[in-house]
Amino acid sequence: MFLARVLASVMLLLTLTSPARAADEPLSLWNDSPSRNAIIDFVTRTTTNGSSDFLPPEQRVAVFDNDGTLWSEQPMYFQGLFVFDRIRELAPQHPEWKTKEPYASILKGDYKKALAGGDKALITLVMATHAGMTADEFSSIVAQWLATAEHPTLKRHYTELVYAPMLQLLDYLRANGYKTFIVSGGGIEFMRVFAEKTYGIPPEQTIGSSIKTKFEMKDGKPQIIRLPQIDFVNDGPGKPVGIARFIGRKPVMAFGNSDGDIQMLQYTTGGSGPHLGVIVHHTDATREVAYDRQSSVGKLDKGLDIAAANGWILVDMKHDWKKVYPFE
Amino acid sequence: MFLARVLASVMLLLTLTSPARAADEPLSLWNDSPSRNAIIDFVTRTTTNGSSDFLPPEQRVAVFDNDGTLWSEQPMYFQGLFVFDRIRELAPQHPEWKTKEPYASILKGDYKKALAGGDKALITLVMATHAGMTADEFSSIVAQWLATAEHPTLKRHYTELVYAPMLQLLDYLRANGYKTFIVSGGGIEFMRVFAEKTYGIPPEQTIGSSIKTKFEMKDGKPQIIRLPQIDFVNDGPGKPVGIARFIGRKPVMAFGNSDGDIQMLQYTTGGSGPHLGVIVHHTDATREVAYDRQSSVGKLDKGLDIAAANGWILVDMKHDWKKVYPFE
Repeated sequence: MFLARVLASVMLLLTLTSPARAADEPLSLWNDSPSRNAIIDFVTRTTTNGSSDFLPPEQRVAVFDNDGTLWSEQPMYFQGLFVFDRIRELAPQHPEWKTKEPYASILKGDYKKALAGGDKALITLVMATHAGMTADEFSSIVAQWLATAEHPTLKRHYTELVYAPMLQLLDYLRANGYKTFIVSGGGIEFMRVFAEKTYGIPPEQTIGSSIKTKFEMKDGKPQIIRLPQIDFVNDGPGKPVGIARFIGRKPVMAFGNSDGDIQMLQYTTGGSGPHLGVIVHHTDATREVAYDRQSSVGKLDKGLDIAAANGWILVDMKHDWKKVYPFE
Repeated sequence: MFLARVLASVMLLLTLTSPARAADEPLSLWNDSPSRNAIIDFVTRTTTNGSSDFLPPEQRVAVFDNDGTLWSEQPMYFQGLFVFDRIRELAPQHPEWKTKEPYASILKGDYKKALAGGDKALITLVMATHAGMTADEFSSIVAQWLATAEHPTLKRHYTELVYAPMLQLLDYLRANGYKTFIVSGGGIEFMRVFAEKTYGIPPEQTIGSSIKTKFEMKDGKPQIIRLPQIDFVNDGPGKPVGIARFIGRKPVMAFGNSDGDIQMLQYTTGGSGPHLGVIVHHTDATREVAYDRQSSVGKLDKGLDIAAANGWILVDMKHDWKKVYPFE
């Protein structure tokens, strides 16, 4: 009995003083900050039996923007960089591109001029690189690009440029019975190539913009053919529409970083019942890039103005995160 | 010791001979039949570690048509009966309907004449009953209808007219790590009102046809507004497109009952790797309705011709199912 008691005391002591304890705490990659505490408080309230904010598991739906919320988006949305790389790769098969805009500017490395043509130029480039093949072929092209391409300045594969504190948050939410979804303006089939391995989010929980497709039996084999026509733009007011269509249930947590996430945040936090809206604010010029109101990519302007009035939590990347990227 | 041994023997005997044993067997509501055995064999092969057909859990995707596969569809798709009921309910607010087709024929009970106008008449009726309200309002209308309306001949609530052996199959698949999806020509928001409670299939796994919607802040409250415009028809070749869009992964099991399911079956069973295609054949004129090639609802004609060549399993409802409806 005596030995058992000593053993129990020692184990208690270990529990109280072990350095392993910090790592076991939720969101250990987050500093003790209002944003971290608001998230933990919300998850605790909604998952504690008997709490007035308790949510049954099927209502625990959390939605995440991707670009700028789960991975970086500077100097340009990574899918945009994929488009540029792809145009260069396909150029030998299209000699006419050397003198035809917006291709010509891209081949000269002048992305700004290429995109000066606005939506029309952008759609032309997207269709030239995203349509005209089967779904399987497109996935292979993206997978190959992700495995080989490097970020222009950081010289890392793009899937390395994910936010370690957000990966930890995804795990933490799932460990608490939350179902995690991506709701992004990015291409749905583009993101699905890496979302499962990178974020633990399966394709059926990855929602994004899409082009039209059609089904065909080709030489006795079933194929999904990608067509050069916009189907759905899952950005801004399109995000709640995409959520209603794909999830069919209002989320209770929403995480975004730009004005394109405002409607998703409004939809999530605008009704009754427990809800939490969070905006990741890019404040870290050293470890990442500091940008908000003036940025052409991931612009956060109106969102900053209305966050407080809506009760949305701002994550201050510089002060709230112990590290930004997993490789740090 | 002696008593313990006797007790153990008695318990062993009970285990071997108990009538409870049959109920523990998979698919006990199915007779020992080729279809039941093919399903059990497939599930066993794909979930047994070390089997050459073993599938990791994330690849265990099973898709089910709804009308005629999970619940009945005679004398008319139940959503069609909802449309007719709804037109009658709304008629007092639309005095002009008394003389205007296709409404007039419905108000006279002449559904055949109402639908003689083809797609145009049908779309008119769908928009009059499915659009022009918020998503929440539409869900309430459907919920109210399901709670009160009765099948014209069976005098049962529609959610009672589900197939007990299929409910058991859904449970069996899920118990074996399969994720079950509905992939139906029916309305996505219509089905989501009852699919979770009736089938255990959550909204995000219920895929169907849709009309366009838009997001709006109305008096500070977020709303999804239903617009009178077709968005997507999830039938025939639309089914693989819907699967690719919503699930983003090829299913390994597909269950249908009509020619509208052919492409979904082709998509599921057309590639390499383990796969199983199943057609529920309505052969039971006593317990349900016997119909196939000549039926205007749930027509199964080409599907019957090509099933064998594709290796698709036919479920003979009359001979393979011990009962049809749960209340029997």
